[in-house]
Amino acid sequence: MSALLTDLYQLTMLQAYLHRGMVEPAVFELFVRKLPGQRSFLVAAGLEQALDFLETLAFTDREIDWLARQGGFSDELLARLREFRFTGDVDAMPEGTVFFPDEPILRVTAPLPQAQLAESRLLNIVHLQTLIASKAARIVLAGRGRQLVDFGMRRAHGAEAALFAARASWLAGFDGSATAEAGLQYGIPVFGTMAHSFVQAHRSEREAFENFARARPARPVMLVDTYDTEAAVARVIELYPALEAEGIRIAGVRLDSGDLAAHAKATRAMFDAAGLSHMIVFASGNLDEHRIARLLADEAPIDGFGVGTALDTSSDAPTIDAVYKLQSYAGVARRKRSEGKATWPGIKQVWRRYDANGFLAGDRVGLADEPAWGEALLQPCMRAGRRLPTIPTLDEARAHCRAQLARLPEALRRLEPAPGAFPVEISARLHALAREVDAATS
Amino acid sequence: MSALLTDLYQLTMLQAYLHRGMVEPAVFELFVRKLPGQRSFLVAAGLEQALDFLETLAFTDREIDWLARQGGFSDELLARLREFRFTGDVDAMPEGTVFFPDEPILRVTAPLPQAQLAESRLLNIVHLQTLIASKAARIVLAGRGRQLVDFGMRRAHGAEAALFAARASWLAGFDGSATAEAGLQYGIPVFGTMAHSFVQAHRSEREAFENFARARPARPVMLVDTYDTEAAVARVIELYPALEAEGIRIAGVRLDSGDLAAHAKATRAMFDAAGLSHMIVFASGNLDEHRIARLLADEAPIDGFGVGTALDTSSDAPTIDAVYKLQSYAGVARRKRSEGKATWPGIKQVWRRYDANGFLAGDRVGLADEPAWGEALLQPCMRAGRRLPTIPTLDEARAHCRAQLARLPEALRRLEPAPGAFPVEISARLHALAREVDAATS
Repeated sequence: MSALLTDLYQLTMLQAYLHRGMVEPAVFELFVRKLPGQRSFLVAAGLEQALDFLETLAFTDREIDWLARQGGFSDELLARLREFRFTGDVDAMPEGTVFFPDEPILRVTAPLPQAQLAESRLLNIVHLQTLIASKAARIVLAGRGRQLVDFGMRRAHGAEAALFAARASWLAGFDGSATAEAGLQYGIPVFGTMAHSFVQAHRSEREAFENFARARPARPVMLVDTYDTEAAVARVIELYPALEAEGIRIAGVRLDSGDLAAHAKATRAMFDAAGLSHMIVFASGNLDEHRIARLLADEAPIDGFGVGTALDTSSDAPTIDAVYKLQSYAGVARRKRSEGKATWPGIKQVWRRYDANGFLAGDRVGLADEPAWGEALLQPCMRAGRRLPTIPTLDEARAHCRAQLARLPEALRRLEPAPGAFPVEISARLHALAREVDAATS
Repeated sequence: MSALLTDLYQLTMLQAYLHRGMVEPAVFELFVRKLPGQRSFLVAAGLEQALDFLETLAFTDREIDWLARQGGFSDELLARLREFRFTGDVDAMPEGTVFFPDEPILRVTAPLPQAQLAESRLLNIVHLQTLIASKAARIVLAGRGRQLVDFGMRRAHGAEAALFAARASWLAGFDGSATAEAGLQYGIPVFGTMAHSFVQAHRSEREAFENFARARPARPVMLVDTYDTEAAVARVIELYPALEAEGIRIAGVRLDSGDLAAHAKATRAMFDAAGLSHMIVFASGNLDEHRIARLLADEAPIDGFGVGTALDTSSDAPTIDAVYKLQSYAGVARRKRSEGKATWPGIKQVWRRYDANGFLAGDRVGLADEPAWGEALLQPCMRAGRRLPTIPTLDEARAHCRAQLARLPEALRRLEPAPGAFPVEISARLHALAREVDAATS
């Protein structure tokens, strides 16, 4: 990825920092200012790609040449950029950790120009994956153990969004993705059935089903809503014995339109009456956590769900108020006081306590050098520009997320948002530091 | 971009098509089924990247090896994929064209396996750029000629979303982007000021302003809301003569929080009182078309706006119901009849008529071989896999979009959505064909 995938002002500020020798250690923290109205909690994700970015951040000749042509950038800056490497430290919540507003999820400690330059792309990576993992976690809770597959590539916001959505939803508990490249890149399971165009291209639906089954006989799933759903299910049942005789066992059907609960019940009844109770019913078509919850409350006999646009764009909350703020420079705590956007200064830690049953009971945000109040959520991830061997793998992060969701208190598990339902307190020392910093800069 | 950036089922269907020799010409059309509730019109964008994709679509050894390891894919398919090239035709609306639901904006004519394989990524590209161009056009209309800059990279959905947002918003009339890489990739103007962290890192705001001005003296803009906005503006005015004596002319200030109208009025008054009436006031901070319209209705003296998250994620409508459907195969018109998702069959054209004052008066969607009813919107773009030299450049597309927006009737120019305000009729022959296709497949 180009090092110029950043806001131009980062480079302008770099020039000013280098010009004045402002290269002492800076501490930036990435956190969310407030929850979107439709969320009760968030799930941290994207750390692995954030560390990849920092480890490989470097400028090519082409990028330096482009900068030189913009005017205003000094030869000194351009020479420094040719040699640029990130040599700092990162502490972060492990991917899959549940978190809340005002809690830093990633902290960068590095010479000021390095920590500043990283801002735009770090946010771009962590915001998106956290957004999708948080949405996916809600769908996982609504799905009550049904198979869940990411179907959203076509309306994800570009190539990287599609891949990150596949990764982040797998991390949050999905069973896989329809996006083939996500299988190659991340090793996650990939799934697929057929499109309506496949049925339409054949002279008859029956011919389409037979052709599909014979072309790739590994447990085919037939799409049954191109013309008339129940008629198509009857066709699948009719075809079943002949294909079975050829060694092909149809796995089930996919419903993609209409009243999914009614179609699922009719389909289930037809399969069971035909002695095909092992056949599965998979559903897709504008699904989200609310529709899935209603279908299951309605006792729709659906074994799995494909979730597309609502997942890949987090369409009910397509953005989180994630920011990356300077909290300390050259050993002095800093604070932004802009109206409605003030931040907590200093180098912080987040501690978590659990109740007697192991459920999340409360968090405290304090200064990193305070005595521990509970489990420390920010962990060392990178030192001197190299990631530590202790970073969890994607599978470990997925297991961690599952454990986190299992420990969510009931108020947070519900789909109806309960902002503020979870106590996050700011330590007395952090309150005191904020007052001191204000006094020093007023 | 990897050829595996597609839904797995495209490859499964390919195998079935090749297995049965179903390689006759197919026609797929990309269109939007219905407008998002917050939009009165859409702006076509992304054609250039769609054509890039089709021209370069090919499988690497690594991708073929991954497929082989999945099981179920035949040696015949893998051999064909090694040689895969797109050899088809594309007709499309020029980028920047205003369009409405049910109107194909891009038509692919190619052997069925090729046209099918392209689906996922074509939608992924065209959906996103059309989404952003459509959002940006609303902001351009609200901005009434003020400078508009894309500030959204950090919360865009990944790298490609940030770049496509910069491109699509420029196409729709923005003046540039803060994303440096967008300047390199697309040659669009890039802009930048400073971050709050820059001010915080200095011992005083005054020192930050001086350092910034001296480090890169090309018309600096100072961020004035880190601590106290009016106090910072006073500091800028104080500094102005000394910096001017050094040959540095401060261009203006940026407001990023609080009551932007009140701060802009106070700032403007302070500048004018100090004889600095040429200084500009630039505003940012959670802006969208509605807030910009209100600020201007309020006569806030703001010269330019940075628009971030709301633009780059199209946050009020983060997705459009864009689809890519088989309309004809082997010379026979096809139609999907799924409940609530039926499509118009056949190979189509969109014609547009204008009123006596040059405003858009109505569109007709009909069969491509019908007599022309008005200006034909779908134009040849690619033949036999090679793009035509007539494709407009990005600058031409931007000029086209400006002209399109100037010809919008008043009902469509308003920010309040007026869905259905614009007449799009389906031709009698298309209605008749739909009936014929239904009769043949029922």
